[in-house]
Parts: sequence; structure tokens; C-alpha cells
Amino acid sequence: MKIKLVYVGKSKKGYLQGSLSDFYKRIQKYVSLEEVVIQDVPNAKSLDSFKRNDLEGKSVLKRLKDSDIVVLLDEKGKGYDSRGFAKFIEDKMLYSRQDMAFVVGGAYGFSPEMYERADFKIKLSDMTFSHQLIRLIMAEQLYRAMTIIKGHPYHND
Amino acid sequence: MKIKLVYVGKSKKGYLQGSLSDFYKRIQKYVSLEEVVIQDVPNAKSLDSFKRNDLEGKSVLKRLKDSDIVVLLDEKGKGYDSRGFAKFIEDKMLYSRQDMAFVVGGAYGFSPEMYERADFKIKLSDMTFSHQLIRLIMAEQLYRAMTIIKGHPYHND
Repeated sequence: MKIKLVYVGKSKKGYLQGSLSDFYKRIQKYVSLEEVVIQDVPNAKSLDSFKRNDLEGKSVLKRLKDSDIVVLLDEKGKGYDSRGFAKFIEDKMLYSRQDMAFVVGGAYGFSPEMYERADFKIKLSDMTFSHQLIRLIMAEQLYRAMTIIKGHPYHND
Repeated sequence: MKIKLVYVGKSKKGYLQGSLSDFYKRIQKYVSLEEVVIQDVPNAKSLDSFKRNDLEGKSVLKRLKDSDIVVLLDEKGKGYDSRGFAKFIEDKMLYSRQDMAFVVGGAYGFSPEMYERADFKIKLSDMTFSHQLIRLIMAEQLYRAMTIIKGHPYHND
């Protein structure tokens, strides 16, 4: 099983890139990990949010396999605490050989087509975070989940 | 009115220090900001969590004024979305001249004395984040709140 982190947005290195790379290295001691960065739609600012989400969604879908378990990080998703999130991942790892793809949308969310493709929707917080920060939060939670699953010391309740 | 961010923990510069400093600079264009780092209790690991929280709490209280509006970042606190969090801060800025102190506890939470002193408890997420990451999330949300209050472009719903 592989975990894919799929982001829509700027491909340029952001201010948190060093910290992010560090977490990715740590996660890869536990599970195979791939970061997929989908380029922003050209001239995105001239498009309405519906059209933009639609084009972004199509780019994301091209990068997913039919067999992928698709998890949208979405404000309408289910909230988990860190142990619950670890359990969510562990269940998939135990009972499935499919890859899991966590997808973070662009600034305006997801297209109807993406919602239709999604197997699960989860929420990291009620708050809105910057695109860069979401990546770091997701990486830290994924690392934390792996240490919880393996019983390694990192997480305190 | 000044905003204080009060953290218990290592005083050494963490891996996110650069990003954190950048947000602090940006926040200070809107509001006076002070970061207060409380040193970890000596030999913390040899103490039980109750004793540790008690000593940490006493160190925090020494750094607060009686007039401060004390807000604990606590898993049992009220969850806000980013606009709600901005409104929470704006209300205090409009109706009070007191300083606001946001307090992040140590690894084992807060002492009963800190809970008693608290005016508000708020929750950033159901998830547990590393000490470093909490600081960055808090700084980004505070910056976001300021831009929401002032109507400056940063936040998209």
C-alpha cells in the first residue's frame, strides 16, 4: 500500500519546504509515500470558481488510479482526533492493498465530479489554513498516525 | 490592546522559526504582539503530569497581568472557524482595552489553577499537533483573523 498526498497549487517551493521534506522522510520509514502536485489551472483568476474547480478536478482525476481509495480533505468532512485518524488509516492498511490518496483542493474547494469520486471526506479543522500550512499539518498528522499505529513514542494524549 | 502568545516549552529555536518570525512581522502591522516562552520545568520527565502542570501553570501565571483576558488553547475548548475566531478577537478589541493572552500548555495540558484563571477556552482542531506546529498554526490564524477584521485579501471562504 502506498499513500499519495495530492495537492492543487503552485509547484514552486514554499516557505515550509524544509520542514515538509523532513516529515516526508520520517513518514517513509513507515509507509511508501508520494507527493503529487497538480499545477494550478492556467489563468485561474479569470475563471469562476465552478469552472476552476471542474478543471482542477479533472487534472486530479488523471493522476488517480481507479483502485485508489480517495480521501478528500474537506471542510464538510468528518473530524477526527489524532488517534481516530490513525485508526482510519490503519483500517485501510489492514483490510486493503489499494493505495490511499489524500486530496487537498484549490482555494475554492472541489468539483461535483471530485465529490462523486471520493470514498471518504475528512476535516483537519474547522479553521481555514494556507495551502502551505495544510501540507505541513497533513504531513505531521500522517507521521503521528504512523507512530500511533506502530506504538512508537511521539504522540501524547 | 496587545496580544500575547504564551507557550510552555523549549526555548531553543525550532525548525519552523523562520516561518513563525515571518508571520509575527505580518501580524505586527495590525496589532502589538508579544511572544512569551516559558521554560520547561526542570527535570519535567521525573514529575507526574499533575505536578508538572501545576509548576508550569504557576510560571505562566507569573507572566500574566490580572487584567489580561486569558484564552487557553485547549482540546476541551470551543471550536471556531476562521471567521468565528476573527470575530472572537474583534469583539475583545472593540469592547476592551485589556491585553489578550493566548496560552498553549505543555504536553500534558493545564493545571486546575490555569483553568480557573482562564476567561475562555478555544480549540484549534480535534487533532493533536506538535508544539512547534501549534505555534505556527496559531500565528497563521491570528494573521488571518487580522486580515479578516480589516477586510484585507488573504482569506477565502
